[in-house]
Amino acid sequence: MSTPQRVSVFRKEHFNAAHRLNNPNWSDEKNERVYGKCNNYNYHGHNYDLIVQVTGDIDPETGYVMDMKVLSDLIKTEVLDPFDHKNLNLDTEEFKDLNPSAENIAIVIHHKLRNKLNPALDLKIRLYETERNFVEFPG
Amino acid sequence: MSTPQRVSVFRKEHFNAAHRLNNPNWSDEKNERVYGKCNNYNYHGHNYDLIVQVTGDIDPETGYVMDMKVLSDLIKTEVLDPFDHKNLNLDTEEFKDLNPSAENIAIVIHHKLRNKLNPALDLKIRLYETERNFVEFPG
Amino acid sequence: MSTPQRVSVFRKEHFNAAHRLNNPNWSDEKNERVYGKCNNYNYHGHNYDLIVQVTGDIDPETGYVMDMKVLSDLIKTEVLDPFDHKNLNLDTEEFKDLNPSAENIAIVIHHKLRNKLNPALDLKIRLYETERNFVEFPG
Amino acid sequence: MSTPQRVSVFRKEHFNAAHRLNNPNWSDEKNERVYGKCNNYNYHGHNYDLIVQVTGDIDPETGYVMDMKVLSDLIKTEVLDPFDHKNLNLDTEEFKDLNPSAENIAIVIHHKLRNKLNPALDLKIRLYETERNFVEFPG
Amino acid sequence: MSTPQRVSVFRKEHFNAAHRLNNPNWSDEKNERVYGKCNNYNYHGHNYDLIVQVTGDIDPETGYVMDMKVLSDLIKTEVLDPFDHKNLNLDTEEFKDLNPSAENIAIVIHHKLRNKLNPALDLKIRLYETERNFVEFPG
Amino acid sequence: MSTPQRVSVFRKEHFNAAHRLNNPNWSDEKNERVYGKCNNYNYHGHNYDLIVQVTGDIDPETGYVMDMKVLSDLIKTEVLDPFDHKNLNLDTEEFKDLNPSAENIAIVIHHKLRNKLNPALDLKIRLYETERNFVEFPG
Repeated sequence: MSTPQRVSVFRKEHFNAAHRLNNPNWSDEKNERVYGKCNNYNYHGHNYDLIVQVTGDIDPETGYVMDMKVLSDLIKTEVLDPFDHKNLNLDTEEFKDLNPSAENIAIVIHHKLRNKLNPALDLKIRLYETERNFVEFPG
Repeated sequence: MSTPQRVSVFRKEHFNAAHRLNNPNWSDEKNERVYGKCNNYNYHGHNYDLIVQVTGDIDPETGYVMDMKVLSDLIKTEVLDPFDHKNLNLDTEEFKDLNPSAENIAIVIHHKLRNKLNPALDLKIRLYETERNFVEFPG
Repeated sequence: MSTPQRVSVFRKEHFNAAHRLNNPNWSDEKNERVYGKCNNYNYHGHNYDLIVQVTGDIDPETGYVMDMKVLSDLIKTEVLDPFDHKNLNLDTEEFKDLNPSAENIAIVIHHKLRNKLNPALDLKIRLYETERNFVEFPG
Repeated sequence: MSTPQRVSVFRKEHFNAAHRLNNPNWSDEKNERVYGKCNNYNYHGHNYDLIVQVTGDIDPETGYVMDMKVLSDLIKTEVLDPFDHKNLNLDTEEFKDLNPSAENIAIVIHHKLRNKLNPALDLKIRLYETERNFVEFPG
Repeated sequence: MSTPQRVSVFRKEHFNAAHRLNNPNWSDEKNERVYGKCNNYNYHGHNYDLIVQVTGDIDPETGYVMDMKVLSDLIKTEVLDPFDHKNLNLDTEEFKDLNPSAENIAIVIHHKLRNKLNPALDLKIRLYETERNFVEFPG
Repeated sequence: MSTPQRVSVFRKEHFNAAHRLNNPNWSDEKNERVYGKCNNYNYHGHNYDLIVQVTGDIDPETGYVMDMKVLSDLIKTEVLDPFDHKNLNLDTEEFKDLNPSAENIAIVIHHKLRNKLNPALDLKIRLYETERNFVEFPG
């Protein structure tokens, strides 16, 4: 174990939000045909489970890839504070003109965390919209 | 096993909905103080997990307390069709004038199912708003 | 804490088995109408999750209601050894003439464990046929 | 819904702790025979999952039995702050002379919360030592 | 976000089936020695949890890699309809001459879905035979 | 399916242990600043969930990548017997001079299993310290 070992660490967090899938360039009929119940005019919502995966060399002094308290605080500032108990379409800048599909939410979260993380660390985002529908974005 | 045996059967379903906690008789300040983030003006949302418990005598011919397919269909008609992918405050009659707290949602679901179930069967409702916050209403 | 305190202890175990729901007094048509896919002639199967609840006074010397190792061994002898990786209809005495519905399996398990437990202890059985269909028998 | 409705609300929290089961009045041989691996001299540990159930009338003004934020804060002060990331035998007053079995931990938590809760509310404690071994104390 | 972003979407489904592991070219003794309880003559069964992972470019118009309703319907037609509540050895063509090990079931499911999916999409199959035994086939 | 197919098989096990994070080359103040509650002098503990992933060609005769009973027995001998219900810092050789962070525990488990596995098989370790903090080491 003399050379640094590359390990992934994962932190799971969650937030609750309302959203609606809608493409303003389409007719109401097309929006309903494509998005079905997810197009409901008055929004619906989810308990989003978020798993942030950070990969890097293990620091031999601490035994850590990254302090999980620091990672948890970063997720709180960048993701939970702006998104938790919010309406993604109406209360956030990021989804004013971007459909808040699980795919797009994962990409937005990746961009927000990527900007604050040490570039030597790899970052992957997994987002559960429900227990049965989830997405992963490796950046 | 000659006398009927009293057994509980449980069926788990889920629905996704937006909601907002707000008391129109209070000031905005009091609503925010009491409900905190749950008072967000533009709604937030949850994946609600619902467990319906029905207790009754086991039918010796079928080995069933109640056909779970019948129970599942009943939950679909009474709960999932009106509540899933909806805004509870805006899209439902039941919560037009009733705060959609987890407690009140459980009571409303109990009333809706109670009306359709055989009176010889007992009914209890458990509702998970999140994995860590849930309620139970025994009727 | 001078008088004995009544506490419930729970042990979760699981077993995998094949079964088929069928009433030999009915026509094939009625069996299919009542049991649907569960009537499949060649059997289907489940991972059954079993939760055994034992309620009694806490022993002040050990701090235990009952040694969980003893309870686990009892469940192994009485339930897992005869039922795990078996066909309930063909390989067991208990379901030769009794429909292996979740309700009936829970009752059979209760009878088998009840006979071996100290009468001062209460016993309740919860059995998950799937994550979404489960039953409870309080004896 | 004119008369108050009795509803249970549940809050799930967790803490991580080391413990050892040992009765100082017994010989080493008896301690090892009774407690097995749980008697390990240098302690072992668990992620304890705690579910606090509070039952009471629903407040028609708030739609709450009890504000879950208040309940969560109370559990933090009374249970998590003194027990989380601690050695129950060495770092706490409650288990200096009391075996930290799951049964006894549940009773101690019940006493601590009971003293701080409105007497009109019923309280029940469920404590998971592992996913497969758990206890419940109804007070 | 001007170039397409490669994202994975996952859909979780489940089915219940009976099966038996047996190699007809071996003696009964060798079959029992290799497969143990899984060789039980009258079959046993499982609740199989299936996670289908589809990876592709995100469609900027819909915000989707693939409509999860379409994916769910495809899994229903190709996997759940032929396998759910069936005996894999007796009721299916695929396992007439192929051992229904978790590995082989995952490969068969991959082949069935691969034939129906857009070739631009990558496909990976994860199959849980129990919570503690599972397999993954990346194609 | 004439050429061998590369499939991953996973086995989930768990063990309970006490540990403490501490760097003997640092002052008490630095240890507490870096490790926080995890530096508690008298140890704390966890229910560790371990997922061992083995990847290899499927054996056409058995339908197995590897007999899960053999893998489970290997994990028992190499990991559960030395670590379960132990104090990692005091009761094991491996962590006498190595901080038992989740990252380091995963690496140690990987080394122990790697030495006993067929070199044609790939090995990856995932270790959950809690449901929300986990690590993965691909070797």
